[in-house]
Amino acid sequence: MKGFFKVTDLKQVLELVTVFPRCRTEILPLDQVLGRILAEDITAPHNLPEFPRSTMDGFALQASSTFGASEGSPAFLTVKHTVAMGAAPVFFIGPGEACRISTGGMLPAGSDSVVMIEHTEALDDTTIECYRSVAPGQHVLEAGEDFPKNGGLLQKGQPLRSQDIGLLAAFGYQTLRVYARPVVGILSTGDEVVAIDQTPSPGQIRDINSFTLAGQVADGGGIPVPFGIVQDDRDALYEKCRQALDCTDMLLISGGSSVGTRDYTIEILSELPASSILVHGVSIRPGKPTILARAQNKAVWGLPGHVTSAMVVFTVVVRPFLEYIAGREPGATKQLKIPARLDRNVSSAQGRTDFIRVRLLRKSDGIWAEPVLGKSGLINTMVRADGLIEVDRDTEGCDKDTIVEVIPL
Amino acid sequence: MKGFFKVTDLKQVLELVTVFPRCRTEILPLDQVLGRILAEDITAPHNLPEFPRSTMDGFALQASSTFGASEGSPAFLTVKHTVAMGAAPVFFIGPGEACRISTGGMLPAGSDSVVMIEHTEALDDTTIECYRSVAPGQHVLEAGEDFPKNGGLLQKGQPLRSQDIGLLAAFGYQTLRVYARPVVGILSTGDEVVAIDQTPSPGQIRDINSFTLAGQVADGGGIPVPFGIVQDDRDALYEKCRQALDCTDMLLISGGSSVGTRDYTIEILSELPASSILVHGVSIRPGKPTILARAQNKAVWGLPGHVTSAMVVFTVVVRPFLEYIAGREPGATKQLKIPARLDRNVSSAQGRTDFIRVRLLRKSDGIWAEPVLGKSGLINTMVRADGLIEVDRDTEGCDKDTIVEVIPL
Repeated sequence: MKGFFKVTDLKQVLELVTVFPRCRTEILPLDQVLGRILAEDITAPHNLPEFPRSTMDGFALQASSTFGASEGSPAFLTVKHTVAMGAAPVFFIGPGEACRISTGGMLPAGSDSVVMIEHTEALDDTTIECYRSVAPGQHVLEAGEDFPKNGGLLQKGQPLRSQDIGLLAAFGYQTLRVYARPVVGILSTGDEVVAIDQTPSPGQIRDINSFTLAGQVADGGGIPVPFGIVQDDRDALYEKCRQALDCTDMLLISGGSSVGTRDYTIEILSELPASSILVHGVSIRPGKPTILARAQNKAVWGLPGHVTSAMVVFTVVVRPFLEYIAGREPGATKQLKIPARLDRNVSSAQGRTDFIRVRLLRKSDGIWAEPVLGKSGLINTMVRADGLIEVDRDTEGCDKDTIVEVIPL
Repeated sequence: MKGFFKVTDLKQVLELVTVFPRCRTEILPLDQVLGRILAEDITAPHNLPEFPRSTMDGFALQASSTFGASEGSPAFLTVKHTVAMGAAPVFFIGPGEACRISTGGMLPAGSDSVVMIEHTEALDDTTIECYRSVAPGQHVLEAGEDFPKNGGLLQKGQPLRSQDIGLLAAFGYQTLRVYARPVVGILSTGDEVVAIDQTPSPGQIRDINSFTLAGQVADGGGIPVPFGIVQDDRDALYEKCRQALDCTDMLLISGGSSVGTRDYTIEILSELPASSILVHGVSIRPGKPTILARAQNKAVWGLPGHVTSAMVVFTVVVRPFLEYIAGREPGATKQLKIPARLDRNVSSAQGRTDFIRVRLLRKSDGIWAEPVLGKSGLINTMVRADGLIEVDRDTEGCDKDTIVEVIPL
């Protein structure tokens, strides 16, 4: 007889992330940290910029020299010097004086603002007319205006984007301490599963989950390591799990569909060294028969065999654990969900959280989410879908025209 | 004197993508194609599944054997055999007969549906009571129901996600023809720019753009190749551009701020072998002084020196070109934009397209976009921003509470 699961609520499962230790950290050159998770807080070692810079091509001057200037009554200024790019000017700009400056040039002592070249006219080599008055600080980045010395720049636990890396470059960071990418073992089980380079006999199917899960692990910041297929053999599965656990940070076992394999999986997970079963069944659909064990302080997952179920469970359950051990601070990351208008009613059972595959459609009045119909065992529903919507356990469904948030797939 | 640009409308610039040839294609093993762009149309070589499969644990039978069955008046069925996982059953199920089957098992001849084990009770080893009637096809995936033989699976020009790779695994594709990742050279110019491992003297700044652009190239599917910094030296810049062009598919030159370098850049771009200037100025802000040349049939970009301007231009102008030469079919990809409610008025000038940096804030009533204030030369505005919104050239701004679409940064 099929056993009944004592399912755990999704929210309670997700609270278990902190049970697991974070991965080690490593020091990498700055050109290799894109997408990595920062493992230290970074503060500004100096002001940025370190000197006042012009944001325009024009003339640096004392703003007061231009007060009241207009097209009809321009201010006349004496042009002294040119600021050379990449050099500190060694002269002083007094009242009624100006010096040529390019975007990014350092303001000379005495000057406090820049007038754009478009608002001036050269009368001769040493005199300009200025048609606009500028305010002190105009067209200037003050020293420390971008980031003041000792100010916080980036925080431990945040993923590094291009602009964050640019910021670190600005301060001369050549290396950075980041979290190592978690190594995630992937194991397929089931007598009916054959490797993709084999021709399945009638009754057999190729191993899809090793590929979908590897892709999801990589997208989630991990390094997928496939451990192949284990047939319905208790000892072989136990040995393979032990081996995999020794060289990975997390293990995903996508369940064979045969009842035998399924029974073994839970037994084996509880018999692994230093193991305990934390979750046996989650109140979500698809994905109820999901198992979470802790063995050697690592998360070991028993995932459904159906490719669609396994992918949904990875997205909504496994991935937060992967991101946690990868060093992400749960609050530091904004999960990218896309608001969209539901284009038909979706029903759901109370007492479990349903995840519905949807396509996103751009129409003239905004973005719509169209549920992808079809049996949950069909991979075509995942291929046609752009994302998932969550229907809460306390509701009976979502009405057409409701705004839903789509988790991208 | 500063020259005036004859700016091109953003839409017209983007129509130039097809001027450039696509990258070469290459054949890769299936475990290396995540995120790559497919270079061939794929059709199903056989039915998927190849045989009718059960989607539940239970009993395969003829649906008509259960018609009228209920808790009060169960159907009695004779249990013959068990379907072994991974094997083709060699027996026939007739009226009043049933055989044990697991999820994923192959339906035996004669059977057309599966009753879930939960809806049955075993009376003895060979007889069950069945409490529900099932319809023909219930709990069964028919042969070809997921994808029929010769049906279209995936299209040339689409990026490969985890589920797409799973689909290819299901059909036994071990290798795949995809587009090569474009190699993008990155060159920084400007007398004031020093490498990040140097301590800038007063008036100098470190080379930020090489890092931000490299990150953006990688995020856009390219392989960034930094060519370092060229000081304000016409011949050196020409030589470096020639070198870079010979071994890349696209070249990004982020503009030195000095007027001299800027003047050289446009001259050099027109003097490169087989070169023509396609765009000199784009009607966007920030980013107006952007240059696009075609040299040796490759796109060569002159980008603004300001890090924020260069990043915005990359996102809205360069990236579509990168994606095009990388093989993406412009229609095949849904650009991920996040609808959000604007939390304050944003003004803009008519006649140019403004890109405003915004932060995304999740509030109880949905997602809000908050403009990030601060001078455009400040990198902190990019670090604080989650995305960009576009204010169309024909409007004077966006009102508070309008729904805007945020391009993620």
